[in-house]
Amino acid sequence: MFFASDNWAGAHSKIAERLLAESGGFASAYGTSDLDKRVEAKFAELFEREVSVFFVATGTAANSLSLASVQKPGGISFCHAEAHVAEDECGAPDFFGGARLATVEGALGKIDPKALATKVARFPQDAIHHGRAAAVTITQATEVGTVYSLAEIDAIAAISKANGLPLHMDGARFANALVALDASPAEMTWKRGVDILSFGGTKNGCWCAEAIVFFNPEQAKEMHFIRKRAAQLFSKSRFIAAQFDGYFEDGLWLDLARHSNRMADRLRAGIERTPDARLAWPTASNEVFAVISKSAAKSAEDKGAKFYEWPIPEARPDLVGENEALIRLVTSFATTEEDVAGFLACLA
Amino acid sequence: MFFASDNWAGAHSKIAERLLAESGGFASAYGTSDLDKRVEAKFAELFEREVSVFFVATGTAANSLSLASVQKPGGISFCHAEAHVAEDECGAPDFFGGARLATVEGALGKIDPKALATKVARFPQDAIHHGRAAAVTITQATEVGTVYSLAEIDAIAAISKANGLPLHMDGARFANALVALDASPAEMTWKRGVDILSFGGTKNGCWCAEAIVFFNPEQAKEMHFIRKRAAQLFSKSRFIAAQFDGYFEDGLWLDLARHSNRMADRLRAGIERTPDARLAWPTASNEVFAVISKSAAKSAEDKGAKFYEWPIPEARPDLVGENEALIRLVTSFATTEEDVAGFLACLA
Amino acid sequence: MFFASDNWAGAHSKIAERLLAESGGFASAYGTSDLDKRVEAKFAELFEREVSVFFVATGTAANSLSLASVQKPGGISFCHAEAHVAEDECGAPDFFGGARLATVEGALGKIDPKALATKVARFPQDAIHHGRAAAVTITQATEVGTVYSLAEIDAIAAISKANGLPLHMDGARFANALVALDASPAEMTWKRGVDILSFGGTKNGCWCAEAIVFFNPEQAKEMHFIRKRAAQLFSKSRFIAAQFDGYFEDGLWLDLARHSNRMADRLRAGIERTPDARLAWPTASNEVFAVISKSAAKSAEDKGAKFYEWPIPEARPDLVGENEALIRLVTSFATTEEDVAGFLACLA
Amino acid sequence: MFFASDNWAGAHSKIAERLLAESGGFASAYGTSDLDKRVEAKFAELFEREVSVFFVATGTAANSLSLASVQKPGGISFCHAEAHVAEDECGAPDFFGGARLATVEGALGKIDPKALATKVARFPQDAIHHGRAAAVTITQATEVGTVYSLAEIDAIAAISKANGLPLHMDGARFANALVALDASPAEMTWKRGVDILSFGGTKNGCWCAEAIVFFNPEQAKEMHFIRKRAAQLFSKSRFIAAQFDGYFEDGLWLDLARHSNRMADRLRAGIERTPDARLAWPTASNEVFAVISKSAAKSAEDKGAKFYEWPIPEARPDLVGENEALIRLVTSFATTEEDVAGFLACLA
Repeated sequence: MFFASDNWAGAHSKIAERLLAESGGFASAYGTSDLDKRVEAKFAELFEREVSVFFVATGTAANSLSLASVQKPGGISFCHAEAHVAEDECGAPDFFGGARLATVEGALGKIDPKALATKVARFPQDAIHHGRAAAVTITQATEVGTVYSLAEIDAIAAISKANGLPLHMDGARFANALVALDASPAEMTWKRGVDILSFGGTKNGCWCAEAIVFFNPEQAKEMHFIRKRAAQLFSKSRFIAAQFDGYFEDGLWLDLARHSNRMADRLRAGIERTPDARLAWPTASNEVFAVISKSAAKSAEDKGAKFYEWPIPEARPDLVGENEALIRLVTSFATTEEDVAGFLACLA
Repeated sequence: MFFASDNWAGAHSKIAERLLAESGGFASAYGTSDLDKRVEAKFAELFEREVSVFFVATGTAANSLSLASVQKPGGISFCHAEAHVAEDECGAPDFFGGARLATVEGALGKIDPKALATKVARFPQDAIHHGRAAAVTITQATEVGTVYSLAEIDAIAAISKANGLPLHMDGARFANALVALDASPAEMTWKRGVDILSFGGTKNGCWCAEAIVFFNPEQAKEMHFIRKRAAQLFSKSRFIAAQFDGYFEDGLWLDLARHSNRMADRLRAGIERTPDARLAWPTASNEVFAVISKSAAKSAEDKGAKFYEWPIPEARPDLVGENEALIRLVTSFATTEEDVAGFLACLA
Repeated sequence: MFFASDNWAGAHSKIAERLLAESGGFASAYGTSDLDKRVEAKFAELFEREVSVFFVATGTAANSLSLASVQKPGGISFCHAEAHVAEDECGAPDFFGGARLATVEGALGKIDPKALATKVARFPQDAIHHGRAAAVTITQATEVGTVYSLAEIDAIAAISKANGLPLHMDGARFANALVALDASPAEMTWKRGVDILSFGGTKNGCWCAEAIVFFNPEQAKEMHFIRKRAAQLFSKSRFIAAQFDGYFEDGLWLDLARHSNRMADRLRAGIERTPDARLAWPTASNEVFAVISKSAAKSAEDKGAKFYEWPIPEARPDLVGENEALIRLVTSFATTEEDVAGFLACLA
Repeated sequence: MFFASDNWAGAHSKIAERLLAESGGFASAYGTSDLDKRVEAKFAELFEREVSVFFVATGTAANSLSLASVQKPGGISFCHAEAHVAEDECGAPDFFGGARLATVEGALGKIDPKALATKVARFPQDAIHHGRAAAVTITQATEVGTVYSLAEIDAIAAISKANGLPLHMDGARFANALVALDASPAEMTWKRGVDILSFGGTKNGCWCAEAIVFFNPEQAKEMHFIRKRAAQLFSKSRFIAAQFDGYFEDGLWLDLARHSNRMADRLRAGIERTPDARLAWPTASNEVFAVISKSAAKSAEDKGAKFYEWPIPEARPDLVGENEALIRLVTSFATTEEDVAGFLACLA
């Protein structure tokens, strides 16, 4: 009953086997091998346009270097107040970009367009003392399990474009959002105005497969140096390429995300059926936030369930009663129906 | 006939299979799993003392963060003029440490102790304008295929200690040096005065397995934050641990290095027997530098041999004749006797 | 009628004349001259203890390097949401410290101790992903013209100490706060628990005289290098020393601040007497915030008054009526009674 | 007998008096005052073209921010091995630019064009591992008292342009070089291909007056933010403007440099006449390097002469005999004929 995080799962067998299959032979290093090139072409095919792709080691690297690539002195990047870049990356985006993040409010983990417009307006391009707007970044799916609709991305992109700001998407759970929206990769990104994408494979069945995808190759031209200077250029780069190769084959990545979302659906349905439990807020991807009694939480843990108690959002102090706990449940490609059923049984 | 670099090889089958074997199940993330801990304990056993171990994505990361961990404002780290940190890391050590490298001369890729002492003396601890000495770093085996003897490491360490400077070893080819010297890991490191080690597994049969090893845990205490801020903390850290687990099992890592060095020995012996070829300088690990005729180089390439022509060292302009080329040949765990024989046949 | 900022004034004649008087002769450079040392001793005398003093070029430098001196990887410095370090320094504190600021709310420009305690608790010393608390900084007098009482500083210091965090005070308007509280320099700083002070002279009658004052010399030991690497070490340092020498002589600095505060008092009294104007909030130093009619603002500007319209605080959207404006009025040593009277006449 | 450095002198009386004269009244801050603008126009007039001018606090700031403004990830700036940026700025150019310096040899403190071309060629624009060439910087007058001829600047500029590299000039002693060459400011800078100039006034009679001058305003567009983020934007900027205003008036700056150079000429002539002393190498500005007996050095110091013993250049170990010392003598606007005569008498 592992619901602590999708990164507690290992690698999907097809991906691990592909890695094994590619381990022999010799190939040129640093991303120049045939396999690297083939996978890059696969990205272009999936996104239905020319793209520049850069493999990196972690999601933090993908986000930080993406923002660094569009940074400028005194620049400010705008993100949601609960965004991973702001909350969980130890200042890496600031460190690599030499710049700052400004947080924007919004319900359900999504930047409120009006709040964004107001905040961006505080940092005009000649604001030498305040600093100037430099980029906008959104997370899809969000940290709280919700998903921006295509129209919601449009709204953020419109403000970004109106202010001349590149739009970055943190896609650590890109596939989960994609299948939740039943959209194509192109539809959820550049067709909406996204310029740079952190494309995450690690949480959805890879060992370590993160890529920065530029939809405008012109913006990518500094990234070769930014990545190397950031110590993120793999010598045996094909070990990432091999994972992505397996990940994409026959739509495996989408199947894994569908499975993961389906397991979350089951959790949601079960929690709604449970008298002493309720959903904290509606979610659409592979994360479920629930309010359960402290005794149920204790009981589930005693029975081996792994999950995190979650801090109560500042904006909703009354969400959780005195004898209750807010918990986060994350499903993954490796979550089984038995685990879900077992967990729900703990709550009943 | 792949002699371009040891990072052109993939992963040894036992390591790749171990990775496959560990891909199932759930385990806690960010280096806290049982496997991570077991591998850390293995490092302690190998080095015969308590150590602090940090996995990172690349050798550049291992070197850069090692030096960053002992950095100070205005600090200078001393390295050989041909060191990887100075020549091949795109400024990453400077970027992460906020500090500078000063290069020191020395024959055969090894820092000359006297030159080091002279150079360090130029940067006393109160030299506000010049900057002050902060660390010393050596590469073992060196970039030019040579290996510091234990006595040579002692000489460098003595100067480091006399000046209060931590000593770092870039061990991208640690195993190759170790078997060349027939020394134990402890004998080649902390028993000599090495404080921090970049322990590389990637070039010797892993996909991606690099670790920073602190022999003094006190110096390691900032590294958790330095590594995370550097975007080098893997979520599914056990995929590194699994590689090291396979790497160390039954002394595989030493066997692979011995094979690699042996293939280099064969190359050396063959070149010495070849009338129109000669060794550029004596080497002891898995890199061989040879002077061959341009026509032989061309012929070998035409027959499919992969290797790099190497820049002629500034200090030895007369090393290479007009119709000759300096070439670098690197062997690895995957190099076969047939490849060596085939290459030598090209020269004959 | 110059109320735009206290930095629109030039230098007080006694300070400018002292600078002229010291312009002859030769003296050793980089802060080592007799005059530099004498002024350092003067700081020690004023603060009634041993201090380490570092002159720098700007208040931004004083704040940024102060925070840099106590920084650590992943560190977070806590400041008020309207603090100069957060709002008006173009990211310099983050740039120099390689770290981040977290803002804390509080009425009247002052950090609310309870909010500080809550915020600090979110960043414990082992919070590798979130980042860890590193320092607290307060502004005295605040950006909105208020002054922390000694008890209020105690409350902030208690939380800082309880969490092992150094406490920095941005004293760009130190003298104005000091005379407002009728406290001694020691009472308002280290006796309250302040560790590092940005001591500003520029806004109060100097040309360019800013100093970082360490009350704990141990914390100062890296500053010589931090300052030089930040390009803030003046060669002819005595030109700063000379200004401070004149500034401190016969208590000139306190007289200037008293004058400045008195002029602000007159403004406050006059505004309170004016039917169509009111104070936006109570202030205690040399800044007055008033709500006046837009027509009065226009009229004053037409008559030559210089002042800034101020953004309406987010927390008080109803502060200003439809036909009103929030304005900031800053007095200085150079403000005359005639200017104050003239401005008040514009409002009547 | 002060020959330790030109920064041991204070400020020329006309400049100090001008500062006093400008100390009254009110003027807008941060470089926007009428005086600031008038002085900027004066720079344009002196250089016979549109320029962008940025005042900063120190020569280190001028150099570091100049190089930062043309920096790129993995970028390398080329300077002479003895350049101030490399030797005397505590790593500030690296710190602000996030990049590295590579040193180039050359006789008499001047970059050898051929050595420059060779070095630049090692860092082509696609050298991800090595890093790529980003800028060239020369010092005029050099650190060892020599002056690049116009033709020598042409040679450096030709290589810079051929490689697409901006050319920066560190003009800490710009005026001394200018009068030594009897050239116009335009002739010694942009007419030769210099793109950015650190224009120093401090060493030649100002208190603190350093400016970054861009001859191509397009390259200057990021500097407003770079400077502010570097904590180098003065609030009372007119105190710098006032110094430059006095500096330029009636050609005072050239008169002061001529005096300074003339005093150096006298020293040179006197040393050449002295049996037990000799010039170490020919110089052309206000620095004289001499070899004198240790006893003469001791005797001069005992009589109150201030000067620095200088490290013997690595390339010329036989320059100085066993009982001799290499000394540096720097003259300034404040050096008197009496001081020169007095010093020479010490040697006799």
